[in-house]
Order: sequence, then C-alpha cells, then structure tokens
Amino acid sequence: MNIEILLFQGCDEIDAIGPFEVFANAKALGAELDVALTTENAVSQVTGANGASIVAHRGWGAERADLLIVPGGGWGNRAPEGTWAEVQKGTLTALLTEAHGAGTAIAGVCTGAMVVASAGLLDGRPAVTHRSALEHLQAKGARPMGEARVVDDGDVITCGGVTAALDLALWIVQRDFGAEIADDVATEIEYERRGPVWTRGGLREISSVAA
Amino acid sequence: MNIEILLFQGCDEIDAIGPFEVFANAKALGAELDVALTTENAVSQVTGANGASIVAHRGWGAERADLLIVPGGGWGNRAPEGTWAEVQKGTLTALLTEAHGAGTAIAGVCTGAMVVASAGLLDGRPAVTHRSALEHLQAKGARPMGEARVVDDGDVITCGGVTAALDLALWIVQRDFGAEIADDVATEIEYERRGPVWTRGGLREISSVAA
Repeated sequence: MNIEILLFQGCDEIDAIGPFEVFANAKALGAELDVALTTENAVSQVTGANGASIVAHRGWGAERADLLIVPGGGWGNRAPEGTWAEVQKGTLTALLTEAHGAGTAIAGVCTGAMVVASAGLLDGRPAVTHRSALEHLQAKGARPMGEARVVDDGDVITCGGVTAALDLALWIVQRDFGAEIADDVATEIEYERRGPVWTRGGLREISSVAA
Repeated sequence: MNIEILLFQGCDEIDAIGPFEVFANAKALGAELDVALTTENAVSQVTGANGASIVAHRGWGAERADLLIVPGGGWGNRAPEGTWAEVQKGTLTALLTEAHGAGTAIAGVCTGAMVVASAGLLDGRPAVTHRSALEHLQAKGARPMGEARVVDDGDVITCGGVTAALDLALWIVQRDFGAEIADDVATEIEYERRGPVWTRGGLREISSVAA
C-alpha cells in the first residue's frame, strides 16, 4: 500500500505529520505500506499554517498512490495560503479529481475535506471535517456526519479537526492491516484512540487499549 | 514567554510539532508567548525518527528561552541518531545543564526526559517518560511517576510518550495563561485532554471540554 500525504503552503502541520508518524510506526511494526510526504509540483518545502516548515520527500505522482491524504488548514480564516486559497486556485482540486478517477482513494483531514468536496468527490456523500466547517461542507453538497470523528466511505475518507488525523490514520491501519497493529501503534505513541468511526456498516465505537 | 523547541537529528516529529502547534494556537488566541523551532548549532534542518524533515527557525540561544522543550525519539532502539546518540555525544546535555543554570525551565517530552536526566537535572526528582523507558529513567536517578501523563516539578517538566506532548503543552498553557485558553486550544485542535498531571500540590485530573 502506497500512501502519500500531500503538503501545500499553509497546510496544518499536525494534519500532515500525525498520519505520517502513525503510518511510519505501523510500517515499523510490520504493516506492508510505504508513506511519503509529497507536494503537487516541484515545491520541495512548505511552511504550514502555524509556521513550521516541512520538507517533502518527492513530488506527487512519481509513484501511483493507493491513498492520498489531504491535510487541512487556513479554511476558517480564509488564509492567503491554505485550503481556502487552494480551492480558489484550483490546481489541487484538479489533481484530486484526476487521482480519484485513476483509482486512488482520497482522505481529507480536517478542512482538507473542503478541498476534497471542492473537487466534487463528496457530492451527496457522508463526510466530516473540522467542527467549524461542517456547514460549509454541507453547502458543498456533502452529507455532514458531525457525530463521527472519522467517516470511511470507501474510496473517500474524512475526519474531524487536527488531532482526528491520528484517529483517521489508526482506523486505516486497523481496516487494512488489522486491529492489533493499530492498537500497537496507539500504545507506542501513547494515544487513546477515539471514535466513533462511520462506515457503510454504521457507526462504530473505537475502544482504546492504550489508555 | 519565550518558548523554544530544540530539534536534533532523529528526534520524534510529533514530540516537536505537537507542542509547537499547541503554543502557536495559544498565541493566536491571545497568550503572550513566542514559540520557535531551534537547533543546538548551525544545523538548519533535521530529519526526524520517522523520516520527516523539519526546518528550524533559528539556532538555539539567539534569544534567551524561558522554556526549552526537548523532544524524544530513538532511545528504545538506540538509534544512531536520536536521544540515545545525543546522550553518548554529550553536547545536547551540556547545553541543557547550561541553559537550566541560566534560569531556563526545561521540558523533556517522551524520551527527551532521558536527555534531561542525563544532563543531571532530574536527580532525585519526580519525572515521567515514554512507558518503555521508565526503568531507564529510574536508573538515571529520577523518581519515575508512571501514573502521571505530565509531571510538572516547576523548573523541570516531563511527560509520557509522543502524544503526551500535547498534554504537556496544554498544561503549560493552562498553568501560565489560564484554563480557558488551554481549553480553547484543545477545542480548536479537537483534542480530548488527558491527565493526570502531577504537580508539587499532588496529582490532578484534567477534564476535557473538547470531547
């Protein structure tokens, strides 16, 4: 499984680094995956919403991703760099539409879900985002599931704000590599997992073993 | 309040970025603080324990820090870069001893506490670290408080593994800028705060308002 986290100027740092570390730990514990930080073009480094600069491993598309994770950041305050700006610009949304059409699953973390929705990938579909943007998500045509921390609709996955990124990544590890590895990662990072996770089978609670 | 997070090769990414984002959010919400990512020398960029590269804002010591945060990483597996390697090398521990002597409070996140202990700053004092390193912490002369997620002994503060970094930073925001700002940050990052926090007044539970 090839996972890419798509950095862009103004993206939230934890939204990107949180899942990266969860997947890196899962790999160290035996999950057959690769995870890389990428950017949409030749930009090799981005400065996040809070001012930390992170270096990408490579440009997007060098290898086909099975899962592409889009961080949030800069939506609520319409920051000059971030999700709001990216939606106005349109290149990131075009990339998502193209990647999804080619069979890549897309995960929107926090207000990354607004970019996914703006790419037309959430029309009429269940999704969640940062609590402050749920109405915007609805206005974009999605079906907001504010009661869920993670919404897994198969080829499109979304989650709540910032630290919900950890629960999204842990859920994907559980779904694709088993609950034992997911719980082992949670224990390693001393994280108390939270749900609920919405899947097509309904809402399910996540019980943490790493309390 | 001038807060510096001291990056080094092999440090854990969430240990560093988690507190950075908490403090940056607290500042945005009105807390009178500055937070920067620094390194101990002219190194401008480090690659973390999980392979993400982060860029420092400046070298350490350009301004006097009121609080210096030391991330963990690379202790349990004695990685060639990380806390274990830094303790063997000794320059980081010397820096901590000097900074503490000059009046800077020191916070050890995760196995960053092992670096703090190796600098002689935890002799006979209560502290916590990643669960896997508690015995090592005791062997270094500290008094391990495994039941606490954060241990605040005034001029030296420590916490459990990885995501406990968020609770350490939120506790410092609460202590120095008030519970309201700390809870507002937790709400913004959709994080359910956890304790207990040990202080000289005893163990206290942290009730989350951001569930």
